[in-house]
Amino acid sequence: MSFSPLLSNLIESLQALPGVGRKTAQRMALSLLEKTPDKAARLASDIEEALEKVGRCAQCRNLTEAEICLICEDRRRDQSVLCIVETPMDVMAVESAGSFRGKYFVLYGKLSPLDGVGPEDIGIDQLLKMVLAEGVEEVILATNLTVEGEATAHYICEQLRRLNLDHPIKLSRIAQGVPTGGELEYVDGNTLSQAFAGRKAYS
Amino acid sequence: MSFSPLLSNLIESLQALPGVGRKTAQRMALSLLEKTPDKAARLASDIEEALEKVGRCAQCRNLTEAEICLICEDRRRDQSVLCIVETPMDVMAVESAGSFRGKYFVLYGKLSPLDGVGPEDIGIDQLLKMVLAEGVEEVILATNLTVEGEATAHYICEQLRRLNLDHPIKLSRIAQGVPTGGELEYVDGNTLSQAFAGRKAYS
Repeated sequence: MSFSPLLSNLIESLQALPGVGRKTAQRMALSLLEKTPDKAARLASDIEEALEKVGRCAQCRNLTEAEICLICEDRRRDQSVLCIVETPMDVMAVESAGSFRGKYFVLYGKLSPLDGVGPEDIGIDQLLKMVLAEGVEEVILATNLTVEGEATAHYICEQLRRLNLDHPIKLSRIAQGVPTGGELEYVDGNTLSQAFAGRKAYS
Repeated sequence: MSFSPLLSNLIESLQALPGVGRKTAQRMALSLLEKTPDKAARLASDIEEALEKVGRCAQCRNLTEAEICLICEDRRRDQSVLCIVETPMDVMAVESAGSFRGKYFVLYGKLSPLDGVGPEDIGIDQLLKMVLAEGVEEVILATNLTVEGEATAHYICEQLRRLNLDHPIKLSRIAQGVPTGGELEYVDGNTLSQAFAGRKAYS
């Protein structure tokens, strides 16, 4: 290799970024040093500052440098609806969609006994406490539509039902079906079966 | 937006990387903080160290933290052949191909009067000095096969010819034609014309 040791280190480190292979990392390294050294310096300091200060929201576990995140702090949001997602990226996706105005709880993963991920790893205790303390009326299970995501949703439902609250909590799961713009021809059979099973009366 | 200020800063900064848009930057930021904080810290320090120490080789202008880069220092390489390229990425590409064993000179761009890029910006003086000092016998012009790349190659040829050296320097331009694996049906007309004009006797 003809790259100098420091350049090689940088190229190696850039490959820690998701989706970045050797070739892309080379291009990134040269671009940072050659074209945008100011932005490169800012990137380095932003990484360091975020690593040092960003942690999890004490309520919903979303990433934040504050004790309580911006969403949990926002009293205009509907405090009675809680949406449970797997990752902070999912919070972002739902926020971008713009139709949900309740609060979130981030699991940081899904139950996966084979990988040694149990209820304590995805913060079930904290979730139950939050439901008890905050007067939540509806819990929307928005874990992924994968086998583990379904199992996790199922487990959380069981736990919430066992709480035996005075007021019954409404539990719901996000709808499964053909995505907007989807063409039946290209949709997998399982999705299609779910779309038929979950059909709604035509209004 | 529901990201905290520090996270927003980091996402913004990651977009300085070539080919990284908002969505990818979000995924990268969360991955760095959540999944690979150790690698994130190393990335930050590698960027800072490279920014501080990596500069240009005093001979060929390639990126290096040393006075003279590894290629220029390697006396086993053919000192009589000099390959002129536009960027350090091009050095990398030619090195990966593995067939060239001479030295390089990196222009960091191409002549582009409209953008105010003149001969002094691409190190022509330094190039001429290098050719005079190092006993170069052949110069291979490996600038891109674009209009500006061709113009730059042409200009450099003119300058080298004007040196009026005792020993004539062989000047060559990389071959233009159909790429390996290329199908004539999908190759543009200009390339095809060049491939016909540059045809070689079948041995």
